[in-house]
Amino acid sequence: MTSQGPVKVGIIGSRFEADIHAASIQMVPDAAEVVAVASPTPGHPEALAEKYGIPRVFHDYHEMLREPDIEMITITAPNYLHCQMTCDIANAGKHVVCEKPLSVTIEEADQMIDTCERQGVLLMYAEELFFTPKYVKAKEMADEGALGKLYMVKQMEKHFGPHSQWFWDVDRSGGGAFMDLGCHGIAFCYWFLNRPKIKSVYAQMGTYVHTDKTKGEDDSICIIEFENNARGLIENSWARRGGMEDRIEVYGEGGVTYADLHMGNALPTYSEYGYGYAVEKAPTTKGWTYPVFEELWNYGFPQEMRHFARCTRGKEEPAATGEDGRVVQEVLYAGYESARRGAKVELPFCPIGVKRPIDLWLLG
Amino acid sequence: MTSQGPVKVGIIGSRFEADIHAASIQMVPDAAEVVAVASPTPGHPEALAEKYGIPRVFHDYHEMLREPDIEMITITAPNYLHCQMTCDIANAGKHVVCEKPLSVTIEEADQMIDTCERQGVLLMYAEELFFTPKYVKAKEMADEGALGKLYMVKQMEKHFGPHSQWFWDVDRSGGGAFMDLGCHGIAFCYWFLNRPKIKSVYAQMGTYVHTDKTKGEDDSICIIEFENNARGLIENSWARRGGMEDRIEVYGEGGVTYADLHMGNALPTYSEYGYGYAVEKAPTTKGWTYPVFEELWNYGFPQEMRHFARCTRGKEEPAATGEDGRVVQEVLYAGYESARRGAKVELPFCPIGVKRPIDLWLLG
Amino acid sequence: MTSQGPVKVGIIGSRFEADIHAASIQMVPDAAEVVAVASPTPGHPEALAEKYGIPRVFHDYHEMLREPDIEMITITAPNYLHCQMTCDIANAGKHVVCEKPLSVTIEEADQMIDTCERQGVLLMYAEELFFTPKYVKAKEMADEGALGKLYMVKQMEKHFGPHSQWFWDVDRSGGGAFMDLGCHGIAFCYWFLNRPKIKSVYAQMGTYVHTDKTKGEDDSICIIEFENNARGLIENSWARRGGMEDRIEVYGEGGVTYADLHMGNALPTYSEYGYGYAVEKAPTTKGWTYPVFEELWNYGFPQEMRHFARCTRGKEEPAATGEDGRVVQEVLYAGYESARRGAKVELPFCPIGVKRPIDLWLLG
Amino acid sequence: MTSQGPVKVGIIGSRFEADIHAASIQMVPDAAEVVAVASPTPGHPEALAEKYGIPRVFHDYHEMLREPDIEMITITAPNYLHCQMTCDIANAGKHVVCEKPLSVTIEEADQMIDTCERQGVLLMYAEELFFTPKYVKAKEMADEGALGKLYMVKQMEKHFGPHSQWFWDVDRSGGGAFMDLGCHGIAFCYWFLNRPKIKSVYAQMGTYVHTDKTKGEDDSICIIEFENNARGLIENSWARRGGMEDRIEVYGEGGVTYADLHMGNALPTYSEYGYGYAVEKAPTTKGWTYPVFEELWNYGFPQEMRHFARCTRGKEEPAATGEDGRVVQEVLYAGYESARRGAKVELPFCPIGVKRPIDLWLLG
Repeated sequence: MTSQGPVKVGIIGSRFEADIHAASIQMVPDAAEVVAVASPTPGHPEALAEKYGIPRVFHDYHEMLREPDIEMITITAPNYLHCQMTCDIANAGKHVVCEKPLSVTIEEADQMIDTCERQGVLLMYAEELFFTPKYVKAKEMADEGALGKLYMVKQMEKHFGPHSQWFWDVDRSGGGAFMDLGCHGIAFCYWFLNRPKIKSVYAQMGTYVHTDKTKGEDDSICIIEFENNARGLIENSWARRGGMEDRIEVYGEGGVTYADLHMGNALPTYSEYGYGYAVEKAPTTKGWTYPVFEELWNYGFPQEMRHFARCTRGKEEPAATGEDGRVVQEVLYAGYESARRGAKVELPFCPIGVKRPIDLWLLG
Repeated sequence: MTSQGPVKVGIIGSRFEADIHAASIQMVPDAAEVVAVASPTPGHPEALAEKYGIPRVFHDYHEMLREPDIEMITITAPNYLHCQMTCDIANAGKHVVCEKPLSVTIEEADQMIDTCERQGVLLMYAEELFFTPKYVKAKEMADEGALGKLYMVKQMEKHFGPHSQWFWDVDRSGGGAFMDLGCHGIAFCYWFLNRPKIKSVYAQMGTYVHTDKTKGEDDSICIIEFENNARGLIENSWARRGGMEDRIEVYGEGGVTYADLHMGNALPTYSEYGYGYAVEKAPTTKGWTYPVFEELWNYGFPQEMRHFARCTRGKEEPAATGEDGRVVQEVLYAGYESARRGAKVELPFCPIGVKRPIDLWLLG
Repeated sequence: MTSQGPVKVGIIGSRFEADIHAASIQMVPDAAEVVAVASPTPGHPEALAEKYGIPRVFHDYHEMLREPDIEMITITAPNYLHCQMTCDIANAGKHVVCEKPLSVTIEEADQMIDTCERQGVLLMYAEELFFTPKYVKAKEMADEGALGKLYMVKQMEKHFGPHSQWFWDVDRSGGGAFMDLGCHGIAFCYWFLNRPKIKSVYAQMGTYVHTDKTKGEDDSICIIEFENNARGLIENSWARRGGMEDRIEVYGEGGVTYADLHMGNALPTYSEYGYGYAVEKAPTTKGWTYPVFEELWNYGFPQEMRHFARCTRGKEEPAATGEDGRVVQEVLYAGYESARRGAKVELPFCPIGVKRPIDLWLLG
Repeated sequence: MTSQGPVKVGIIGSRFEADIHAASIQMVPDAAEVVAVASPTPGHPEALAEKYGIPRVFHDYHEMLREPDIEMITITAPNYLHCQMTCDIANAGKHVVCEKPLSVTIEEADQMIDTCERQGVLLMYAEELFFTPKYVKAKEMADEGALGKLYMVKQMEKHFGPHSQWFWDVDRSGGGAFMDLGCHGIAFCYWFLNRPKIKSVYAQMGTYVHTDKTKGEDDSICIIEFENNARGLIENSWARRGGMEDRIEVYGEGGVTYADLHMGNALPTYSEYGYGYAVEKAPTTKGWTYPVFEELWNYGFPQEMRHFARCTRGKEEPAATGEDGRVVQEVLYAGYESARRGAKVELPFCPIGVKRPIDLWLLG
């Protein structure tokens, strides 16, 4: 591998999330450049390559792994493929950026962490909320003591359903809205509170609106109790109309702060005629809308990619690791188990042989 | 009793809540007038009487009950006195307006309902959120189908601690923030969803900030599952800085609405010099503040008092009854029990002999 | 006239504004009741009478003036009729409530004031912004010194065009958006600053969008310089999409406050299906909307009507008088003259024989 | 000059604005790097150099101009020095980035443009609002037709007074709040409307609060009429309490959009204890505040610097030029003249021999 110039990156996948990775990396040209994309569906990786000027295209990611100059590979494939891909990448001696959630099972998470460690490559967990600039500002204030001792951190992510069809299929996703979106909230609260030990998890969930589309839950509430006497409250939904919602509330004995990535950053706009693009998952651009600006930057994707590229070069320590993803995975397990039991589940909670987290709720 | 002119009202109590009753009734002179106030502490009822021009003052409420022209009595005394007072009023043949929560125990609630029914007087439950005009608008829209089938109703009430000292003493209050403020949220969700049967209650709570002041919980989260496949999510706090917060969020399969009684109604204001009054529990009037206007009206107190007066005359049916208060009481019991168990509690849940709801959590 | 019980009111007119008067008076039953309505169009007054239970209907307002028990008459007819009606009412010995603007010409305003004074009746000017509770709160804070010495007061009222067709016809209205809506802003700034002498007026206006409908201006900006070294900045539009906008901003050397009657009081709502009513002039109830609650109360109409009724009984002094309306009229003249000249116009400015204020701009 | 790697930049000045340039360029390392700073005050350039790792320090900017590898020089010195510095830089064969306003007089602006043109270097006008991402989004929507034909663009910038003392001295600044802040609004409206010809300018201004500090105006309102039947409305203040305000409102026949860089992007926060930094010119970090995140990026400074660096290399065409700055200068002249006359001033308006724009108002 070279260690000069931008880090050379390969992307596995070619759809929604792969596009975000390519666009984000293009925004930090000093740190990284996408040199390859791999996706099995004919035409898909070619389209992404053309859009972003990516020189190399593969239909089999194993071939991409043989490219000697590629230093970092990002995984945007469905959840059930994360583990195998990560291990293959690590075994090829390249650093891994894996989209959230880290895996389907805890065993997979352990295997991913072990393999990367053994191979001496980084396993970086693509939790962009750790880089979302508005949320980072909240954390900076909290860390400076603005809010005193924190006793509750809330995070909500809601919309009317995922962008890719495979999410509805719990065999490929491993769970519904809680797994898809709750993984953000779990990681967020854990990070915001500076990674205290987790004592217990309670979750309440159901399939309230999309019973025709999925066996997975489409709305969930999760309460996490931490050792430092603080809690996380996480709300997620695939049933919320009106576009995306991503918000936090932080309560401390000395203060409170609120951050809203959508209505709170937007340009309230009324349009008779509509316009090009408002925001991810916006239902329309006519009437009153809440368009956002520089969406990727406000989510933190380019900042995240720059950071991962710098980690790849040893200039920074990963702020989001496989270990973080593994904690999330355990909370997901505990949450589904809790939803079935109707009781909070104490951690550690690592049942053996669970095929998909949602099984603890559906089949338990 | 007369049946012409404004309903003649007597108030038991003379502090914060009594002041609200007196001020609110003064705003609906067509419907009611306060003719008497009773409170044992010398000077207190006199002060209220002078402020609002109330002609008769008593230090023993039993004496007030002997006044033949008084038709409706409102109770603003501490929770543990509600039952005895209600029964005394009913036995005096007068209609009762009882502040929230209805009682300390379920047995008391039953006794209050029975006594009023037997005496043929109304037991009206002073849940002002049923009259809060902004929340009423949300309910109208929901009832018109604007949001489709509802699957979640949220209500939050938070501030930095109660106005009267007796609230901190669980012997007199029966519980902390969940009892003091959660009774609003429980009633609200139940009412908003048109009183579906309640299946289960989960609550998480703790004493996070005010351990020096109270044994009661100062922050709580409560999830109620209803029979019609909807839930309530209720958050309460005595630990939230920055003044009052009273908000709702309503989610349906066809839409969503938000209402905020404070920051969402206020005049964002910066003042170097300060001013007279911003809002209940505001910490200051200097710097940036969120003053509200016509606070009582925006909470719905005058509308509530007009309604109760009209009920007293048989012109309207009570929109908030002892039965509503009894439902709230049962959910409070279940919530405290749940917080101890760490598991949701199925309803009906009526344990015998509980002295204070909070005992189910503290002593359980 | 009686002097017991609610003031007996007759309304001239039967459309949009008459409906507001009837509804508002119904909300203050202790103070006033509508006992008669007069409007020449067959069916119209009858419809209003039925909707609000008004017992007496007239097609000729002169007949209504002969009813001995009516004490106060409100005028909701087109502007060009205000003067004649006011004089007729005064000559019948009844108190007058005249909708804004007070008149078309200054001569009319003078005649109205003189006639009412001579007849010993009140000429009350229906500027509801003096009673808008959110704006009243802003004024209370300012009067308490919260903002220090004020140097600028802004008021904006904008929507996409008037509710009644006669507004588009400058022969009947006397002017466009500046006359229709600017009269509010002029009165507001004058009142908010406690009626300082007006030094000069500058206005800029044009017909930007509705050239097919009107010769009147559909968007205007007006700057008023007051003697106490403060200014008013008033923006008005019949060309603003997305529903009503009514906002103020107040700047003082010691602070600033903002109040928004629509987006700032509303329940942000997304609805797939729509609902009954959002707010005056809202284009739709589907998608994102900003429904308001208790619209009349939040504009201050019932409070205004209660006040005028109490003035009629001598219990209060009119807070909005013919003199206020006359000041507004002079500023309207000066504004139109200024728009033509492209220069500010010093007050007093009372050109003789102007038929319609807008003529100073159109024909000047 | 080299044409590989980041553009080498020298900064003239070492205070508030110089710091912004250095910080912003550090955020776009792929495009530019600061290699030198020049400022006459001993210690000042050294401090900036240390903070940002700038290798070369000069006390005489002429020496910096002799460095052969520096390609682009940014000017952050007081307004009255802009012209001489620009000419010196151009004569040294380097590209110029000049802070706003471009100059004090129109003659200077002309000279700057001419000199740069003759020397074949770029004169880039540092109007960051052309790069402010939220405002850029508004313009994109407008250009896509979302709002139909625009008839009014508003921009407001207000705070409680400038960061550097020389602004208060009209001899060095050339004017007050209108010159300091209005130059942004003038440029903004002109750019947003796609540079239509300007027909007339009206301005109203005064020294309302800071009469002890300055002869310059501390609050101004400006109306610009454009040839395409649209207007700009620009409000500026050095007398607005509560921190920075930078907002736009855009009105078209088909819609409206609002963007607020401060309260509209912030994290509403209550803090008992305070924290490090909220936002430029925030009076405190205790109580309720509106901290922003990534302030420079949200203003558009790094984007602007990247753009200018790319222009220096011929990869992009300057989006903000000396010609833009010259238009602003003419409107500033016309505005001050108008404020004196009390009448709008038609363009072109280029009086000869005006020493400072404000003289047209003060001395006129």
